[in-house]
Formats: sequence, C-alpha cells, structure tokens
Amino acid sequence: MSVRTDLAVEAKEIYEKENKKEISGVKVSNSSLGRVKITNVQIQTDEGEHLMQKPIGTYITIDMPQYTHYDAEIMDEVSEAVAGELSKLIKLEESMTALVVGLGNWNVTPDALGPKVVNKIMITRHLKKLIPDSIDEGIRPVCSLAPGVLGITGMETGEIIKGVVDKIKPNLIICIDALASRKIERVNSTIQIGTTGISPGAGVGNKRMEISEKTLGIPVIAIGVPTVVDAATIANDTIDMVLDEMIKSAEKGKEFYDMLKSINKGEKQKMIEEILNPFVGDLMVTPKEVDAVIDSLSKIIANGINIALQPALTKEDINKYIQ
Amino acid sequence: MSVRTDLAVEAKEIYEKENKKEISGVKVSNSSLGRVKITNVQIQTDEGEHLMQKPIGTYITIDMPQYTHYDAEIMDEVSEAVAGELSKLIKLEESMTALVVGLGNWNVTPDALGPKVVNKIMITRHLKKLIPDSIDEGIRPVCSLAPGVLGITGMETGEIIKGVVDKIKPNLIICIDALASRKIERVNSTIQIGTTGISPGAGVGNKRMEISEKTLGIPVIAIGVPTVVDAATIANDTIDMVLDEMIKSAEKGKEFYDMLKSINKGEKQKMIEEILNPFVGDLMVTPKEVDAVIDSLSKIIANGINIALQPALTKEDINKYIQ
Amino acid sequence: MSVRTDLAVEAKEIYEKENKKEISGVKVSNSSLGRVKITNVQIQTDEGEHLMQKPIGTYITIDMPQYTHYDAEIMDEVSEAVAGELSKLIKLEESMTALVVGLGNWNVTPDALGPKVVNKIMITRHLKKLIPDSIDEGIRPVCSLAPGVLGITGMETGEIIKGVVDKIKPNLIICIDALASRKIERVNSTIQIGTTGISPGAGVGNKRMEISEKTLGIPVIAIGVPTVVDAATIANDTIDMVLDEMIKSAEKGKEFYDMLKSINKGEKQKMIEEILNPFVGDLMVTPKEVDAVIDSLSKIIANGINIALQPALTKEDINKYIQ
Amino acid sequence: MSVRTDLAVEAKEIYEKENKKEISGVKVSNSSLGRVKITNVQIQTDEGEHLMQKPIGTYITIDMPQYTHYDAEIMDEVSEAVAGELSKLIKLEESMTALVVGLGNWNVTPDALGPKVVNKIMITRHLKKLIPDSIDEGIRPVCSLAPGVLGITGMETGEIIKGVVDKIKPNLIICIDALASRKIERVNSTIQIGTTGISPGAGVGNKRMEISEKTLGIPVIAIGVPTVVDAATIANDTIDMVLDEMIKSAEKGKEFYDMLKSINKGEKQKMIEEILNPFVGDLMVTPKEVDAVIDSLSKIIANGINIALQPALTKEDINKYIQ
Repeated sequence: MSVRTDLAVEAKEIYEKENKKEISGVKVSNSSLGRVKITNVQIQTDEGEHLMQKPIGTYITIDMPQYTHYDAEIMDEVSEAVAGELSKLIKLEESMTALVVGLGNWNVTPDALGPKVVNKIMITRHLKKLIPDSIDEGIRPVCSLAPGVLGITGMETGEIIKGVVDKIKPNLIICIDALASRKIERVNSTIQIGTTGISPGAGVGNKRMEISEKTLGIPVIAIGVPTVVDAATIANDTIDMVLDEMIKSAEKGKEFYDMLKSINKGEKQKMIEEILNPFVGDLMVTPKEVDAVIDSLSKIIANGINIALQPALTKEDINKYIQ
Repeated sequence: MSVRTDLAVEAKEIYEKENKKEISGVKVSNSSLGRVKITNVQIQTDEGEHLMQKPIGTYITIDMPQYTHYDAEIMDEVSEAVAGELSKLIKLEESMTALVVGLGNWNVTPDALGPKVVNKIMITRHLKKLIPDSIDEGIRPVCSLAPGVLGITGMETGEIIKGVVDKIKPNLIICIDALASRKIERVNSTIQIGTTGISPGAGVGNKRMEISEKTLGIPVIAIGVPTVVDAATIANDTIDMVLDEMIKSAEKGKEFYDMLKSINKGEKQKMIEEILNPFVGDLMVTPKEVDAVIDSLSKIIANGINIALQPALTKEDINKYIQ
Repeated sequence: MSVRTDLAVEAKEIYEKENKKEISGVKVSNSSLGRVKITNVQIQTDEGEHLMQKPIGTYITIDMPQYTHYDAEIMDEVSEAVAGELSKLIKLEESMTALVVGLGNWNVTPDALGPKVVNKIMITRHLKKLIPDSIDEGIRPVCSLAPGVLGITGMETGEIIKGVVDKIKPNLIICIDALASRKIERVNSTIQIGTTGISPGAGVGNKRMEISEKTLGIPVIAIGVPTVVDAATIANDTIDMVLDEMIKSAEKGKEFYDMLKSINKGEKQKMIEEILNPFVGDLMVTPKEVDAVIDSLSKIIANGINIALQPALTKEDINKYIQ
Repeated sequence: MSVRTDLAVEAKEIYEKENKKEISGVKVSNSSLGRVKITNVQIQTDEGEHLMQKPIGTYITIDMPQYTHYDAEIMDEVSEAVAGELSKLIKLEESMTALVVGLGNWNVTPDALGPKVVNKIMITRHLKKLIPDSIDEGIRPVCSLAPGVLGITGMETGEIIKGVVDKIKPNLIICIDALASRKIERVNSTIQIGTTGISPGAGVGNKRMEISEKTLGIPVIAIGVPTVVDAATIANDTIDMVLDEMIKSAEKGKEFYDMLKSINKGEKQKMIEEILNPFVGDLMVTPKEVDAVIDSLSKIIANGINIALQPALTKEDINKYIQ
C-alpha cells in the first residue's frame, strides 16, 4: 500500500504530483532510438536520494512502443536500446568475467523473468576454461545463476550470490528482476537499468541482504521490468478518481465539498487494506497473455545483454552460440 | 462490470442484498460432508429464472475448507463430495458413454482448469471398442475433449462439440469450465455443479452457442470453479466499502449524508470502467500460486468425476488405470 | 521392426538397396532453395504404389542444412521452402477456408510437433465471421484443431476430425504429424509434404481411420517430420554394420563367409524383437535437446504454412497478427 | 561405451558375469519392505573399491515394484523405504541444518529429476531464522539448491555448491541426481542411496569436481535414479545376444564357432561407436511417458527425504507445510 515504487521515473512523478514542484537533486534527460524512448534519471545529491527513496546513481528507463511483443522488428530495436545503454555502464576489459543473475521465482510466471533471461544468455566461461584454444579470444567469459527466492530455497538470495561470487570471483554482476509498478500502463512495457543494485523483496517491507557493489565488492547493474500491479494499487487509483470526480461536481464552499476534501488519505488506505488484507500479498494483477509476454521480454533483455557483453561478436554469431 | 455472476449462490446473495428481501421461485437447502459445505440452489419458477438471470434447474455449490489445496486428505473429501453430488445427477446405465469436455484456454493458467481436468479423466471408450474382452463389463465407456477457445481455434467451442457429439453419439456430457467470481474469497474455493449447461464467454457479453441439452440433444452437466476475480470487481468492492464507511460516519439527515446516499451506482461503475477500460479484458487478478492451485483443483474435480462415472470401480482401480 | 517407413525417399532408398535396381513407377526430381535441398518424389503407377507401399501422389522432402535449429536465418530459408512447396499444392481461392490440424500427443515432446505448430498458426476464421469489416478482404479464413490421440481422448483422431469437418465445412486440410525415421541423421532435419493424407499410428500396425480426401471429401495436405528413431532401428542398423564388417574380413568361399552370408535377416530381427520386446513401443530415442528442437521445428513449419495460406500478407503482417 | 555404471549392484553383476566368480571385498545383504526390495552393497576393502571402481562405502538399492508410478499406494511404500534407509544414514541432531541439492539440467526431462525433487522439499531454514517462535522446535532447518549444469551456468556444479556451503554452513548434504543405466529394465525403477558422494558427469569421462565429504567437509548422501539408457548400450546388448545365439547354434570345434568366439569385443565396440558416433552424447533412450514418470519419481524421493529429515512430524504435517 506504500507509495514506494521500484521505478525511479515513477518515484519522481509521484513526488512532483504530490508536492506540486520539481524534485531537486535529480537530473533527467530524454532521448530516443527509433521508436524506443529512453529516459535517464540521475540522482545526484543526498537530498535527491532522500526524496526519491533511492540511492545516488543512474536509472535509465526504456519505454517500449505499443505492440512490441507482437512485432519481432520492434523487439530487436528494444534489444539494441538495452544493449546501447548497458554498454555505457559496463566498464570492463574483454577478458573479464560477467555473472548474469536472474532473480525471482520460476514457479510464478510474472516473477520468472529473471530465470528466463539467464536461460537465453550466451554462456562461455566454461568454454574459456575447458577448451580455450577453440574459443575466439574476443569472447568474454560469461556465467549465470538463477538463485531462486527465500521461500523456495530457505536461503537469502543475497547469501547464495555472495557465496558463489566469493568462489567464482567474477568482475561484474548483471541482475535481472521483475518489479511491481504503480501504473497499469507500465506493466511489461518499461525496462529500468540501474547502477545501484537491488534489494530483493524490498517492496514487501522485509529487511533483506542488498545485492550491490557495497555487499558484493564488484559493480552490480540491475535490470528491472514491472510485470505486475498489485490489487491495492488498482483499488486505490480508482477510488481516487471517483473522489476527484465527486469533488469536481460538488459546489465549492458547501459542506459536502469540505467533507470530501477532508477525507483522510490514510484512512482510505486503511480501509482498502482491510478489504484486501486477507489476500494481499497473495493476489496479483497480470495481463492474461502473461506467459507469452514474459517470454518476449526475456528474449529482448537477453539479446540486449548478450550484445553488450560480447562487443566482438555479431548478433548472428551470438544466435549460433546460444542455439 | 455487470452484476452478472456465474455462481447461482452469488446471484441470490446479490439480489437479496440489493432488494433487501428473499428471492422467490428459488429453493435453497444446505448440507455438509465432513468439512465440506454443500449448498443446493434450485431455480423452480419462471420468476426465479428471471430474477437470478439463470435457467430453471439445479445449481450445487461445494465450498472447500481453507487450506484444501495444501492437504491431500481434505482434497479427497472434496472429491468425494463432488462425486456424491454428480452421482445424483447422472442418470445413466453403466454401458452408456460419457463425454467429458474441458473448456477454456490451455495457454492461460487460470483458464486451463478444464483442459487439465480432462487430462486426468479415466479414458475407456477406445478400450471398450478395441479390446472389449479384456475390459471389465462394469466399466463405463468414457471419452474426452478439450476444444480450446475461439481465439485459438477460429471455431466456436459449441460448433466443435456439436460436430464431435454428432459423430461420436455419447449419452451424457460433463463440461468443466473456469468462471469469474465477484468475491475474492470464492476464488479457487468453490465448485458449482449445474444441470443447465454452459454459455462459453457468456460473461463477456458475446452471443455464443450454448452448450446444453437444448443445443446438443443429450444431458449436459456443467462443473465450474471461479479462478479469477476481474480487476473491476476489486475496484468496485473497495469503493463500495469506502462509501459505506463514509455514510456510517456521516450524520443522518445532513446534506453530506444525502449526497452520499445519492451517488449513482451507474455513474460510479462508468468511472471505474473509464479508468480500467484500456486494460479490462486483458487484466486478471489471481493468487500468486495459481499454477499449483489449478493443478490441485484439476485433481479434485477429475477424481470426483472418475468416481461418479465408474461406480463399479474403487478409487484404487481408477488410479491404476489413469497412471 | 518392419522396414516400413513414413518417408517416401527412405522407402525408395530401402527398396533400391535391397533390390539393387531402380524402382519403377516412381519419378524423382531434385532442386534447391538457398541452402535447402528439395526432393520431389512422384508415385505415378500402381506398380510404384505397390513397391513403395504408399498411395499414388506427390511426396516432397525438404532437407534442412546442419545447425538449422541454431540459426534464425536458415530457419527462415526453410520456412520459405516449405511455403513455396505448399503453395504449389494449395489450389484454393482466397476466400476459401483452411483447417490446420496438429496431430499427435501434446504430453510426449517429440510427438507434440503438430499441436505446437497449430499454436503458431494465424487464426482468422472467427474474425472473418465476427468482425468482417475490420479484416482485410485478402485474408483467408483459417481455423485449427489439435485433436489429441486415441489413448488421451478415447476417440479416433479421424472421427473427431470428420465430426468437425462435417460441421465447419472447410475447403482444405493441412495436417502436421511427427513421424518415425529409419535413419538417425534424418531425425528433426527432414520435412515431408504429401498429397495423400495420413493414417495416424499407421506404423504401429493398427488399422485406424485414414485422414485423406477419400475419407473427408476435401483435399488433405500432410506435413510430417521424423522426430524419433525407434530403439529397434538403432539395434538393427548396428548389427548390420557389424555383420558387414565380419563378412568383409572373412575369406570368400570359406565356411565362415558362407555362414555369415546365410544369417537369416528374419531371425535376426526376431532376436532383436525378443530383447527389446517388453519395452518396444514404450521406448524412444531422441536428441537430448528435444524440447528446443521441436520448438524450432514448429516455428519453421507454422511460418511456412502461414505464408502459403496468406499470399496477400507479408511476413511482418503475419507476425503482428499472431503475437 | 565404457562398462562403467553408476549403480553398485550393476557393477557387481557385470564383474561377476565377466569374471565368473564372486567379487571380493564387497558385502551384500537383502531385505524388503512390503513389495519393495532393498539391497545393501557395502564396499569394504581397497580391493573391493578397485574392482567395483567405486569408493569404499555403503550403496543401498531400492527396487520399485512394477506399476509403482501408476499406484499411489505403492508410491507411498517406496517413499517409506527411502525414508527408512535414509534415516539410518542421517546422523544429525534435530537442530542441525540439511541442504538438499538437486543436480541436473532442468531443460532435459530425464535429467530434471534433481531439480524437481528439491521443488517438493519442505523448506524451513528461513522460517527458523525469521519467525523462530512460530515454528515448532522439533522442526529441522532445511534449505535447498538446484545448481544447474556446466553448460547452462558456465560454472562447475561443485564450485557453486562449495561457494554456497561455505557461506551457509549446513551440517549435511543430500544430493539427488539422474543416472544412466546399462539395463533397460532398471530405468526409472531403481533408487540408489550412497554415502560416498557424486561426481557430476563422471560417466562422460570429464574430470569434474567431486561433491563429497572430502571436497565439502560435511557428510554427503547421494540419491540417484537411472532415468536413461544410452543408445550404445541398447545396440551393444542386442549384438551380444545375436552373437550368443549364433554361437549356440554353431557346432563346437568348427571354424565358424571359433571365429565367432574370437570376435574381439573391443572391435565390436569400436564399430558401434563409429555408427553412433556423430550422435552419441546427443541421443538418449527414454520411455515415452518420461514426463509423468519423472514427476512420480520426484514425489517418491521428496517424500522419502522429507520424512527422514523431519522425524518429529507426521506425513500429514509435512504435506500441509509443503503446499
């Protein structure tokens, strides 16, 4: 029920809507690549960090055109945009190892994005070790992990990653995670790339081990896509609109108008919570064709990562490798 | 957005709540089997049919205890209840053929209940035809069909079933379908068994070919389980509760109270529609563990059907047959 | 264990190898499209029909280059070849309806090719009926069916198709089925397109209802891909090679040579049968990555069918339609 | 092609058949539980270790009755046998943590046994840590991991496990792996429990990091089930039987008899290798209903492990926990 959001662009929107002024300490720039819109949000100061409730760093949002998931050509364009933005963030010699981590629960379709992406990553670390002579020099060693979630493994995701990182010693981590959005229209249509890591299940209010450069000792790039809206968000948004309509048509200065204005947002939220409470956390709102869309998203992101991690290869080379 | 519901018990509840009186032409009786609650709703008159917006006939609701899907023993109890109620409705000699039809879209998990049930039905018709001597006489010939949905096949579900029925000539049809509920707490916890057939996609307002004795010429028993709530229902329910709370705390006779009372339900619904419109039909609200729950439901119902269709066999015999 | 094969090119090879002469009544021509090899076998006379154990008609074999399933570009080339060959066989006005039938058992991966293909077909018949004005005139009405197999439905596949065809009245059927090959190297690398229909489970020796113009009254084009080799074939082939090696190294005219030559092929086969008998029918030999390969095959064939059935559309249009 | 086998009982059989004498340094005892046969093979001396090509230790074989996978009651009996044998090997206080590791490739059905088992394990470690007060004291902390395979992750399975073990510090590991059998009749019908760990991919001749007490510093119990036979085994077995038949019917002392006797087993194997070579490693022989059988096996084994790890709980308690 909190106004917290995983997306930096949403956090900014919400802040500015509620406070009716521009947020400070945050720099935004826009660009586009073909039909793809790219927004670069930089949180630059402690104030920005505090207001946005997100650490200082870069948050890139890639907005996919409508019907992306039904059009192979647009899918390729989005992959190129992902690759382009990732490339700017990856400062890594060719010979250095990247670990791609797919977060999330593979048993819950909209949360399975991460595991599905790592399934399509070009894995080369073992080849570089086992048959180095038959592998082109320009190919970067890449390995991957889908650590599952606490309820499935009984272990903190961060613990598993930390254990593997300490043993394998990669030079960079790219994490993929499914997020929750506050807006229905962002579901499955926005990709956020950030430099400040991830706190798994952060939204749920649990204190979990962060997956970031601070905890792991190597740079962590986080790629997130909102794949669900929570039921409470939908309830809340519609109620707000209903109240707004009522206020609009009420006569200013009259008792009714004042009453409506005085409706306590906190109380309203408490009521929604009460109604949904036995179910909240268990319910999710997804598009019906969620399986097909998560599949499409995982291809788009995996392609973007593969292109960015293997600058010496063409897309065709990568496809032949991956099968 | 319509107040229409697939469940007879809900239709009655809604009518009586809105009209503050008992519905007429409808007889209700309650019973229980172990921890399972059974409600028998009989629509007996034309008035009942009109008020309930459902044809004259019997509608049995089986309410599963909490945690059914996590407890193999309760699952068995529910299967027994399904079998018991079905048995009363199946008036068929042992040698007569039943066709079990799993309606719904196998690509959308909460809609895949029907196809998943038929996958667990004990299929015997071909054995009775090909190797009659090695099959016990008491075994009823059973066949099954998962006809898919219009968007997948390009053919009306009713057309496919009609074509197959004309060719195969079964004596009874049992249809299984996923329904939409108006109440979150009914999702995946209520089974409705009815004698009046099914109109696929009826809720969506499309005019589709009915699957019923009238159209197919043989008795049709319909088994339905609400597996989703639509997003609009959740929005609507929470708004109603917020308004109720506001009314309760407003002073009777005052302007505010009157205004609240006067809020047009139709307009409220129009607003919700407006907000959700671009998404409605595409969005669904499901529990997160939807895959596991649909699996459990399909076992419960398939067991119930198998027991009811094969009275000469023990549960063990059936299990050995099915694999 | 029979020398029977689903593939016309194999039947011809086997006949000519065993009889050491060219088969008569059968005309063969070769061509190629890019890297794809195309063989056109025409059985023209009753003698050809008898020798080939296949009805008079056209059998086109499309041989995919190595690594097709790992290279999106070659996949497209093969789709084009399938589309090209299909187009020559489809003699159908634009406005006439095609029914695409995916034969096979969706629960057994290498047999699920047909159901997986129909899942990717551009389905339009319902749109032409429900919203004719918003559909381009040039779009052909297409519908599809995955009838399952006898053991799953309890009904003959042919019965189901006949029932649906009588009701829906399409003008053409395209069937897709998984076949068994006698050669490991043909598995998942050969597509056969034939004009004489299909006998489901024909190889197993059962007498089943044929799916052909004769039984259904409309033209039937059959597309088949060998996706398994049976265990007995592998055993048999290796034994033959071992015996050949022994014969080669034995001295001509000597007792050993004569003995080897005299080994009764029928007895050899009986022994293999004896060894594998308790398992044969239950065992299959597949490549390990069977899931990925069947997926790739289903895309190739579905694309080929879509292009052939919708000559008025570009590949991009089709992709947008299908999702 | 090697005579190596993952199963201790098979290794003993092969040795004794080839050497026509009992193996020394190996003690065998038989027992049964209901319809389940249990064989306990103990390799006790260095000579036994050398002859069996397996480390000194205990290897328990559980033979399932025919039709186990079609009979829920027998499945329970087998689970009880697994639990009973495991319990004898687990020397661990209630409060000590077990890590259950599901080895194998989740994308290849017969190799997915391990990952499927861990999916059904009762996971409690996180509950003991997060909400200790609401968890019964008698419940053991259990966590699980499905580390994937080298080709999927680019990391040695042993490395991943070592990294996680160093971080999480469990007191016991139970590994589950799919094996290859030399005998068709053992496929999916034999469970081996061993105390000496596992060498992933050992059969393929690669030198991989062992998963054992030696490498991980804590006891490792390995549970394995043969789920495939390789194609070469089938070819080889049938050829042997054909040759045996030929020898039997040849007259002793004659040239032919001598020749047959002189056929070099090594050469025979080389020929088989030649024929199958381009495919070996890529081909597998499985039962057709492999998906259903692997599912059944994973339930049997997971139940056995759950019962053995949670002696304070009843089967019903465990079921309620697991969902």
